[in-house]
Amino acid sequence: MFRNQYDTDVTTWSPAGRLFQVEYAMEAVKQGSAAVGLRSRTHVALATVNKAASTLSSHQRKVFKVDDHVGVAIAGLTADGRVLSRYLRNECINHNFVYEAPLPVGRLVVRLADKAQVCTQRSWKRPYGVGLLVAGLDESGAHLYYNCPSGNYFEYQAFAIGSRSQAAKTYLERRFEAFDKCSPEELIKDALIAIKETLQGETLTSSICTVAIVGVGEPFHIIDQQTIQEMIDTIEAREESPYYERTIEIQDGRNPDAAPMEI
Amino acid sequence: MFRNQYDTDVTTWSPAGRLFQVEYAMEAVKQGSAAVGLRSRTHVALATVNKAASTLSSHQRKVFKVDDHVGVAIAGLTADGRVLSRYLRNECINHNFVYEAPLPVGRLVVRLADKAQVCTQRSWKRPYGVGLLVAGLDESGAHLYYNCPSGNYFEYQAFAIGSRSQAAKTYLERRFEAFDKCSPEELIKDALIAIKETLQGETLTSSICTVAIVGVGEPFHIIDQQTIQEMIDTIEAREESPYYERTIEIQDGRNPDAAPMEI
Amino acid sequence: MFRNQYDTDVTTWSPAGRLFQVEYAMEAVKQGSAAVGLRSRTHVALATVNKAASTLSSHQRKVFKVDDHVGVAIAGLTADGRVLSRYLRNECINHNFVYEAPLPVGRLVVRLADKAQVCTQRSWKRPYGVGLLVAGLDESGAHLYYNCPSGNYFEYQAFAIGSRSQAAKTYLERRFEAFDKCSPEELIKDALIAIKETLQGETLTSSICTVAIVGVGEPFHIIDQQTIQEMIDTIEAREESPYYERTIEIQDGRNPDAAPMEI
Amino acid sequence: MFRNQYDTDVTTWSPAGRLFQVEYAMEAVKQGSAAVGLRSRTHVALATVNKAASTLSSHQRKVFKVDDHVGVAIAGLTADGRVLSRYLRNECINHNFVYEAPLPVGRLVVRLADKAQVCTQRSWKRPYGVGLLVAGLDESGAHLYYNCPSGNYFEYQAFAIGSRSQAAKTYLERRFEAFDKCSPEELIKDALIAIKETLQGETLTSSICTVAIVGVGEPFHIIDQQTIQEMIDTIEAREESPYYERTIEIQDGRNPDAAPMEI
Amino acid sequence: MFRNQYDTDVTTWSPAGRLFQVEYAMEAVKQGSAAVGLRSRTHVALATVNKAASTLSSHQRKVFKVDDHVGVAIAGLTADGRVLSRYLRNECINHNFVYEAPLPVGRLVVRLADKAQVCTQRSWKRPYGVGLLVAGLDESGAHLYYNCPSGNYFEYQAFAIGSRSQAAKTYLERRFEAFDKCSPEELIKDALIAIKETLQGETLTSSICTVAIVGVGEPFHIIDQQTIQEMIDTIEAREESPYYERTIEIQDGRNPDAAPMEI
Amino acid sequence: MFRNQYDTDVTTWSPAGRLFQVEYAMEAVKQGSAAVGLRSRTHVALATVNKAASTLSSHQRKVFKVDDHVGVAIAGLTADGRVLSRYLRNECINHNFVYEAPLPVGRLVVRLADKAQVCTQRSWKRPYGVGLLVAGLDESGAHLYYNCPSGNYFEYQAFAIGSRSQAAKTYLERRFEAFDKCSPEELIKDALIAIKETLQGETLTSSICTVAIVGVGEPFHIIDQQTIQEMIDTIEAREESPYYERTIEIQDGRNPDAAPMEI
Amino acid sequence: MFRNQYDTDVTTWSPAGRLFQVEYAMEAVKQGSAAVGLRSRTHVALATVNKAASTLSSHQRKVFKVDDHVGVAIAGLTADGRVLSRYLRNECINHNFVYEAPLPVGRLVVRLADKAQVCTQRSWKRPYGVGLLVAGLDESGAHLYYNCPSGNYFEYQAFAIGSRSQAAKTYLERRFEAFDKCSPEELIKDALIAIKETLQGETLTSSICTVAIVGVGEPFHIIDQQTIQEMIDTIEAREESPYYERTIEIQDGRNPDAAPMEI
Repeated sequence: MFRNQYDTDVTTWSPAGRLFQVEYAMEAVKQGSAAVGLRSRTHVALATVNKAASTLSSHQRKVFKVDDHVGVAIAGLTADGRVLSRYLRNECINHNFVYEAPLPVGRLVVRLADKAQVCTQRSWKRPYGVGLLVAGLDESGAHLYYNCPSGNYFEYQAFAIGSRSQAAKTYLERRFEAFDKCSPEELIKDALIAIKETLQGETLTSSICTVAIVGVGEPFHIIDQQTIQEMIDTIEAREESPYYERTIEIQDGRNPDAAPMEI
Repeated sequence: MFRNQYDTDVTTWSPAGRLFQVEYAMEAVKQGSAAVGLRSRTHVALATVNKAASTLSSHQRKVFKVDDHVGVAIAGLTADGRVLSRYLRNECINHNFVYEAPLPVGRLVVRLADKAQVCTQRSWKRPYGVGLLVAGLDESGAHLYYNCPSGNYFEYQAFAIGSRSQAAKTYLERRFEAFDKCSPEELIKDALIAIKETLQGETLTSSICTVAIVGVGEPFHIIDQQTIQEMIDTIEAREESPYYERTIEIQDGRNPDAAPMEI
Repeated sequence: MFRNQYDTDVTTWSPAGRLFQVEYAMEAVKQGSAAVGLRSRTHVALATVNKAASTLSSHQRKVFKVDDHVGVAIAGLTADGRVLSRYLRNECINHNFVYEAPLPVGRLVVRLADKAQVCTQRSWKRPYGVGLLVAGLDESGAHLYYNCPSGNYFEYQAFAIGSRSQAAKTYLERRFEAFDKCSPEELIKDALIAIKETLQGETLTSSICTVAIVGVGEPFHIIDQQTIQEMIDTIEAREESPYYERTIEIQDGRNPDAAPMEI
Repeated sequence: MFRNQYDTDVTTWSPAGRLFQVEYAMEAVKQGSAAVGLRSRTHVALATVNKAASTLSSHQRKVFKVDDHVGVAIAGLTADGRVLSRYLRNECINHNFVYEAPLPVGRLVVRLADKAQVCTQRSWKRPYGVGLLVAGLDESGAHLYYNCPSGNYFEYQAFAIGSRSQAAKTYLERRFEAFDKCSPEELIKDALIAIKETLQGETLTSSICTVAIVGVGEPFHIIDQQTIQEMIDTIEAREESPYYERTIEIQDGRNPDAAPMEI
Repeated sequence: MFRNQYDTDVTTWSPAGRLFQVEYAMEAVKQGSAAVGLRSRTHVALATVNKAASTLSSHQRKVFKVDDHVGVAIAGLTADGRVLSRYLRNECINHNFVYEAPLPVGRLVVRLADKAQVCTQRSWKRPYGVGLLVAGLDESGAHLYYNCPSGNYFEYQAFAIGSRSQAAKTYLERRFEAFDKCSPEELIKDALIAIKETLQGETLTSSICTVAIVGVGEPFHIIDQQTIQEMIDTIEAREESPYYERTIEIQDGRNPDAAPMEI
Repeated sequence: MFRNQYDTDVTTWSPAGRLFQVEYAMEAVKQGSAAVGLRSRTHVALATVNKAASTLSSHQRKVFKVDDHVGVAIAGLTADGRVLSRYLRNECINHNFVYEAPLPVGRLVVRLADKAQVCTQRSWKRPYGVGLLVAGLDESGAHLYYNCPSGNYFEYQAFAIGSRSQAAKTYLERRFEAFDKCSPEELIKDALIAIKETLQGETLTSSICTVAIVGVGEPFHIIDQQTIQEMIDTIEAREESPYYERTIEIQDGRNPDAAPMEI
Repeated sequence: MFRNQYDTDVTTWSPAGRLFQVEYAMEAVKQGSAAVGLRSRTHVALATVNKAASTLSSHQRKVFKVDDHVGVAIAGLTADGRVLSRYLRNECINHNFVYEAPLPVGRLVVRLADKAQVCTQRSWKRPYGVGLLVAGLDESGAHLYYNCPSGNYFEYQAFAIGSRSQAAKTYLERRFEAFDKCSPEELIKDALIAIKETLQGETLTSSICTVAIVGVGEPFHIIDQQTIQEMIDTIEAREESPYYERTIEIQDGRNPDAAPMEI
């Protein structure tokens, strides 16, 4: 095979200036079950597909709370994701202890990216095989980041990773301009629709997805299955009508334009 | 062989984003003799097949007590399993010493998974070649986890690992909805039947299996051979009747719905 | 392939006295999106092309502020660039703390080059895959350096790196003699035209480029998108006239010949 | 050869979930000269074949005293066996010093197994190439263990390892049910017969075998050559009679059913 | 290729007793742009060819001041040369601090050579890819050394290294007997002619060469471009006359036979 | 070659359970010039063939004094042998310092064997390439051991190692039963005859052999060349008579049955 | 090539018990320019051929003073030789500091040999590629040793190493019996003739050889070129006479039989 000498060691450059082992690790993210994230000005919603290994097992956790103001959704090697989540949790705790203030999301994401970068430059380690959607709220508002095995990170309005995430991305690209002013409920509904897109016709039920939200006045939490199921039912009802108009409703008297970080 | 350059080092990703060495280690679990676990709301039962290496030897221990409220059953490399069991034991002792309370099962399982994950990311080590069914009781009730060489773990209602475990899984899938309210005795009987399924027609005797239980009011213990043999006899008697109805009997006046963790 | 035994390890010399792995890492710089830098006697402008990974994401940061008097633009592996930027930031902070004076740009650049050189002489690491244009102002005036993965650095009047940078370099070579006396505004305009050259006919908009400036009286800062867009519009208006003469205008009453380092 | 890529490094799993290097080390045990062990309720006898390298040399020691209550017989690499024996000796001394009580045999065996396991999980070491029969007496009675290069251990009623040990095992399997109540003398005689089985027609003399015993009232010691020769003569005399009945005789007024560990 | 097994690791000897990797590193010196050095009894001149990477860049520094009494010119990997120059600088500073006297040139050269030798005997490093001409003055007079990647050093009356240095060496060999009594100006002129020889017909201008001198009464310094250009003009004028006689002139009242080291 | 994948690394087992690198190191012993050792009840004699590298050189030392009561003769890599001899010397000195008594020979030999064993279990070392005949006297009498590169050791009545040692061994096997009661002089003579056997017809002279003795009343010392030559002459005179009877003579009034260790 | 798997790593034994990498390093000694040494009872002379790399350079130093009573001449890798010489120098200084007496030559040589041996037993180093002739005087008289890359050393009456040393050795073998009583002058003359033999017809001049001497009343020093040239002239004059008789003359009233070590 023509590329056999440059793609087995993470410290070996190919003649074209590529690090194949890093690219292969990014492939592992594409194999994981899908995760999506969406952001309004005040809230971020995360959603993942949870496929249980068997009918006997609960599904693997794919959404992790990091702190009151941050959480992650992962796609790829779950074990790597869990280890990185705990690293994030420690960083938040330590920052809070020293500064008595939550760690800004952007700085947390950089630390995570640096940890990943180190693994792309040591011959006796391997790049992490997991992508993380980091959702958080800080003084500069709500944020959604994607951290990649290569040590890169990107800020997104909305994003989807994992297997068959292309369908979700297409949906999100069509809709993302409306997200900025969405209510949390609307974000969650869009997250559910995006997740539905990755299922390729499979029925979406509350048991095969996890949805979490963080935002102004709402610490990061996973939404209970019953609420999700009700939302799914609403979505499906609407979809059955030939064309459905979405109306953005400010709910609970909360104003999405309000200043962030008042958890 | 076409895949020869990506599958000899645990830190090498394949172009498709897989870690072959981790997958091969998981294969080692499938080679081990079978282990099953079942969980009711208050109890967990573990059972393993014990094949003695020869008529002269006792069988290898496949069930390990970790603490009063936790125990494990293993399939795969017994030496790796033993080393990991001792790690679990130390974690429990240390936690107990510091907090004067038993270590919650879920946290124990995460530490075990993290230890396994490290071995999938260092070029001079190898992934552990053992799968562990962790059974435990804590304030949130009875739990059954499966820890995998990849550093993943899953919570199960019931599960079977090791060679020919598919037959046991099929049985458990058919029956698992009833387990939640089972008495300990019923759990053990179902464990024995599941073990029987893996034997492919071989006769089940108390000498070739080990059964352990942990639950409300019952510290983790291995059930003595005589009791097991009596249960096996009962099972076989019932099986001989053309169709047997199972009745759930609350025994010993213990109520399976009672609050857990009163060992 | 004839060169297969000398090009997989950074500590292996080829018979012709070359280090192929270092050359391959330099290839990674050519794959990154373009970055340009220009220097007058008192100011340095940096500009980068920002291609967002998708319509949903913000683009990756390619320009980093290091200190009030220094900043960098990168091309190549963004993660490596970010890690090196933080190294630069630490060096500046430490120097400032000890000497209560900003770290001269030339010395900062040498430290960066030394850090890169180490990675070309250890078998268990890899050369960094990123090129950095370092723009700074110190007592000896404004400076523009290019730091290369090989551990070399060069001082430039103007330079372009990254994909399709050849077109920008051609433009800069034609124009560079005029830069020395340019006003900051003129520098930025030339930077924008150079960036435009790398786009191969694509339209230049303020959303796909980042421009930063540092100079006398101007701490390093990224110029806001609106200002950039206005400049782009001016450039395009002028270009539409058959031949356009550029006039160097001293703006804002600032004299570019003034003594540097009065930020 | 089809299996050439998975069998040269102890940290490499084969696709079928095997560690070939560990299996090859176990092969080294089969190449060593034979060792047998037998256990009654109160005593354990060990016996080894001692083939001197030449008529000029004494034979290599294959039986090692570890403590008053424990000893080992080895098959495989003698140097590895000697190093492990000293490790056992140190463990016993340290335990005795701290707790003023002999180290229980089962715990000693686990420590030995753990030491062996470590060598199956480090790329810069090799698994030990020796099998150890550990004979000991503690408060729970007499014990015979077999420790294997894989880090596994097994408790046995009687066992034989090393070259041509199959013949000895066949003999022991036919006879082992009687061992539990045997007197020490009977155990030794059976050990001698088992050793004889491995010689394939070669004459058994006291000079080519070492026999040791440990039990109630008898610290671990190697039996002197003269006693062994007398026993061999007795065995051969009996064998010459067409069919010989073995009678279990309680000798020296010692009762094999007595409580153990009164050395 | 027949020599493929001995030339990829610096710690591997070839059957003929050669270290190919060291020889390959020496090849890197030949690839660098040329450097020459000449020595009179009281002065040493260094000169290098400076080819700028582009018209936009300044050239890379190839001459480094180490201390008032020592300087180096390099050919080969500039990054390696820079790192070694700083090492030299530190050695001089430390010696000066401890002994309050400049470090003799010969001892400095040995330390440099030892640092290079270490890199030829460690498998995880590579030999330095740079040659250094070390010019210095101490109590024993003016010295010119050549330090090679192999860890060897040689004292020279005059020497040239780098690409096309053979032509310069031919010139120097024809002339070197006159150097001992040359004035500094004469040395510099010869250095310029030697540099000219390496240019293969290209015109020598002050912008493509750097010249430095150290000697009695003259701390190591790089000669300013204007002076160099004037000298080049004189040389070219003389060359145009059919045969030119060189007259050694004592200039500035300085006597080249005077005792050295009075900087 | 069929065995090419298991025989280049000392930590790699062959499928048949062999460590080829250890066996190859033992081959190095066979390449060294011959060494013999013989033991009576009270004395041990060592003898080696000393082939000088040229007529100009003295021969290499092959017999080393370790302590007053111990010495060694080596065959194989002399440098390895010298290093191990010094290790032995240190062990003796340390023991003597701590316990004020000479280190028993058997314990010394075990330490040496353990040092050799370590080198058979580390991938970054190699087994020692030397065999040692250790001759010593302690409270349990005179001892002769052979230490092998594999980490094994054997006690011998008499032994020969090195090139063409088979002839010497044949002689020793024919004669060894008489050695136990030999006088030191007789031992030396037998050593000389054994050495003569390895010379394949070459003439034995005192200049090509070294003989040493240790025993009751005789600290370890190398016997002077003149005495050796006289003994050689006697041997040859006797050999010329058609059949020679050896008479054991107690010389110097010393009784070989006397208690040992009264040096 | 049939021997390709055992000759690239110094820790790999060949099946025949050889360490090819050590042998290849010894080959490097043969490639170096020649060095000879000769010893009388009271003096040792060393001589080397010095081939300057070019007419411009001084030759590389091949003779190093270690202490007043010891010096070395090297053949092979000069850098390795220089590093080892400094090691020797340190050993002498340290010994002198502690014991206030010069380090005996034999002990110095053993330390050097041990340092070389270590490099033949570590996979990440390489054997030194240099042979050293060590000349010294101590209380036991004058000594000449040859230290080899293998970690061996030999004492010689006279020896020659390096390229074309065979001719010198032939001369020395013919003459060596006379050396013991030679005057220092005679030794030097014989050294010069031996050096001449290695030149294969080239003319011997004082500029291409270095000669040093150490002995009773003469600290180690290199003999000045003029004296050497006069001796060369004498030798050549004598050689021109058809047959020349050498007369041993005691010069300067010094008696070569005098007790050594009175420097």
